[in-house]
Amino acid sequence: MFEEKNDSSHTDLSELGEFGLIKRLTSDITSKNSSTIKGVGDDAAVLDFKDKQVLVSTDLLVEGVHFDLTYYPLKHLGYKAAVVNFSDIYAMNGHPKQMFVGLAVSSRFPAEALDELYEGMKLACERYGVDLAGGDTTSSHSGLMLSISVTGEVEAGKAVYRNGANENDLICVSGDLGGAYIGLLLLEREKHVFKANPDMQPDLSGADYILERQLKPEAGKITIEKLAAAGIMPTSMIDISDGLASEILHICTDSEKGCAIYAEKIPIDFVTSDFAESFNISPLTAALNGGEDYELLFTIPIDMHEKIKELEHVSVIGHITNKESGCLLVTTDGSAVELTAQGWNHMRKES
Amino acid sequence: MFEEKNDSSHTDLSELGEFGLIKRLTSDITSKNSSTIKGVGDDAAVLDFKDKQVLVSTDLLVEGVHFDLTYYPLKHLGYKAAVVNFSDIYAMNGHPKQMFVGLAVSSRFPAEALDELYEGMKLACERYGVDLAGGDTTSSHSGLMLSISVTGEVEAGKAVYRNGANENDLICVSGDLGGAYIGLLLLEREKHVFKANPDMQPDLSGADYILERQLKPEAGKITIEKLAAAGIMPTSMIDISDGLASEILHICTDSEKGCAIYAEKIPIDFVTSDFAESFNISPLTAALNGGEDYELLFTIPIDMHEKIKELEHVSVIGHITNKESGCLLVTTDGSAVELTAQGWNHMRKES
Repeated sequence: MFEEKNDSSHTDLSELGEFGLIKRLTSDITSKNSSTIKGVGDDAAVLDFKDKQVLVSTDLLVEGVHFDLTYYPLKHLGYKAAVVNFSDIYAMNGHPKQMFVGLAVSSRFPAEALDELYEGMKLACERYGVDLAGGDTTSSHSGLMLSISVTGEVEAGKAVYRNGANENDLICVSGDLGGAYIGLLLLEREKHVFKANPDMQPDLSGADYILERQLKPEAGKITIEKLAAAGIMPTSMIDISDGLASEILHICTDSEKGCAIYAEKIPIDFVTSDFAESFNISPLTAALNGGEDYELLFTIPIDMHEKIKELEHVSVIGHITNKESGCLLVTTDGSAVELTAQGWNHMRKES
Repeated sequence: MFEEKNDSSHTDLSELGEFGLIKRLTSDITSKNSSTIKGVGDDAAVLDFKDKQVLVSTDLLVEGVHFDLTYYPLKHLGYKAAVVNFSDIYAMNGHPKQMFVGLAVSSRFPAEALDELYEGMKLACERYGVDLAGGDTTSSHSGLMLSISVTGEVEAGKAVYRNGANENDLICVSGDLGGAYIGLLLLEREKHVFKANPDMQPDLSGADYILERQLKPEAGKITIEKLAAAGIMPTSMIDISDGLASEILHICTDSEKGCAIYAEKIPIDFVTSDFAESFNISPLTAALNGGEDYELLFTIPIDMHEKIKELEHVSVIGHITNKESGCLLVTTDGSAVELTAQGWNHMRKES
C-alpha cells in the first residue's frame, strides 16, 4: 500500500479560509484529457466529448458510516473514494475522464490531513487517466464528508445497462470476491483490541491481500479493455459494491429474468477463505453479502463461451434463466436456494 | 412562496432502507430532455449532448453551515439547492439539463421530510427544464447534507468564463442586490425572538420580497435568454453567490484587469434598503458583501451600450480599467475606495 508520511506540521483551516484551502489543494492540477476544456476555477467545468455519450456517476462518503478514520489513512480514503466512482463508469462500459470533489470538513482536520486526502485522489486520477476538474469545499460541524461525481465517455450506443440480460446468457465476474469485507472485519477486530489495550500492536500478518482489497480497491479498467479487445460486448453489467447476491438481483430484476449461480464457481482468494474461517464466517457468505469488492459482474451471450474462457481473471459463475425460475444459488451438494440480498445497507437498522 | 403542508405522518427511514428510500423519492421521475438517454436506476446516467459542450457544476449544502432548519422549510431548501446550481450553469452562458443529488441524512428525519425536500427540487427542475437524473442516498450521524451536481450544455465556443473582461468593457448586473442577506438577518432576528419567548409570533410584515430572495432565489435563465435574443455576448460572467465585491474581484483577478464600480448605480430594492436600515446596516454594504442573490454579474464590450440599455432588469454599474488602477468603488461624493472581498466565507473564523 502507500507509504506513510510523518508530517507533524499543522495548519489550521481557519487560517486558510475557503479560497485559500481550494488554492492549496488544487493549484498543482493540470488537465490532460482532450475532453476537459476548462477544469477548476470557474462557475462550472467545460467539457467536450464530441460525438461520444457522457456518463455521470455520483457518490457520498460519510465518516463513521462509510469509513472509520481510526484505521483508514486519508490518502487511502481519497484513493478509494475516487476509484469507487471510476468503477461505476466502467460498469457502464465507459471510461472515466473527469472527477468533481465536494468536501465538507470540521475544523478538527488540519490542512495537512486534506493534503493527504487529495494526494490519494490525485494518485487515483493519474493512474486511471482522469482529470480533477472541479468541486466545492466547505466546513461541517462534525467530521468529514466527501461527495464525488465522475464524468466519463462511451461511444454512442455502447453503454451497457443493468437491464439487458437475456435467457441463457453466461454470468461472469472479474477478479475474486469477499476480500474487502474480510479485510474490514480484520481492521475492526484490531481496532477493538487496540482500544482494550493501546500497547498491543495490531496483528495483520499474512493479511496484506485482504487489507489492500479493503483499503486500496481498484476499478475495472483492465476488464473493460480486455473485453473490448476480445470483441465481447456484455449484455448487462454492474459493479459489485454491495455483494454479489445484491448485484445479480439488480441485473435479474431490471432484466426481468432469473438466474442460477454455482457456489463452487464463485472466485474466492485463499487469503480471504483463511481469514473468513478465522472469523467463523463462510467464505461464500463473504463473497455473496460482503461489499466493496468493486469487481465487475456482467452477462454475455452464450456463444461467447470460448472467447471468455481465454480471459484471465474472469470467471463464469452461472447463467441467466427465465423470470419464473427465480434467482438461485446452486450449492456444492447440488441443492438450490433462493438468493437474497443482504448487502451493505447503510440506512437500515442493524439487526 | 410555497404553501405549507400539514402532513403529520411519520415514516422512519430505517423502515424503508436505502433502496426503499431512493425508490420512494425517485419513482415518479421521468426524463424530458433529449440529452438524457438514461437517468436514475443504473451505475451512471447516460447523456448525449451531440455537438454541444458540457458544463458541470457541483455544490455542497451542510445543515448548520449553509442553512438552519429552524426557519428553512425543506421544500424551500430543495428548491434553492437546485436553483443555486442552475445559476452556476447560466453563469457560463449555458443551460442546465440534468441534476444529480447526493443526500446524507440522520435518522431524526422522517421520510416525509425528505419527500418535502425532493418536492422542492423537483419543482425547480420542472420550472427550469432540468431532469433529475441520478444520485446517492446515505445516512449521516448528524443532520442533513446535500450534494448537488448539475450538467448543462452550451454551444461549442460560447461558454463565458471569468477571465475574459477587457479594458473599457461595461460591468453589468441583473436584478437587484443585498435582499437575500437582509432576508437572512430578519429570519435570524425572529429566530432569537422566538427562542426568548416561544409565544411571540414572528414579525415578518412587509418583508415578503427579502424573504423570497433568501428562501426562494431564482437563477439567471431569463437574463441569459434576453442577452442571447439581443445578440449580446458577455466577455466575462459570474453569478453573485458571495456578494458583488467578491465576485467583481474574481473577474478582475482572473482577467488581470481593474474596475470602477459606481455606488449610486448598484441596484437595491427599496424593501432591502428599508430593512437594512432597521438593522443599522448600509444597504450598499448588504449589496457589496451580503451573499446569495444569485444575480448575474457580467461584462460587455462598450459598443453594446445602446443594446444593453434596452434590457429590463439589467443595470450598468461601472467599467473595466487596467490592472494598475486597482478595483475601485466610487462613492456618491465622488471619492474612490479600494474594493475588498468580505463575502461569505464558511471556513474562516468569525472575527
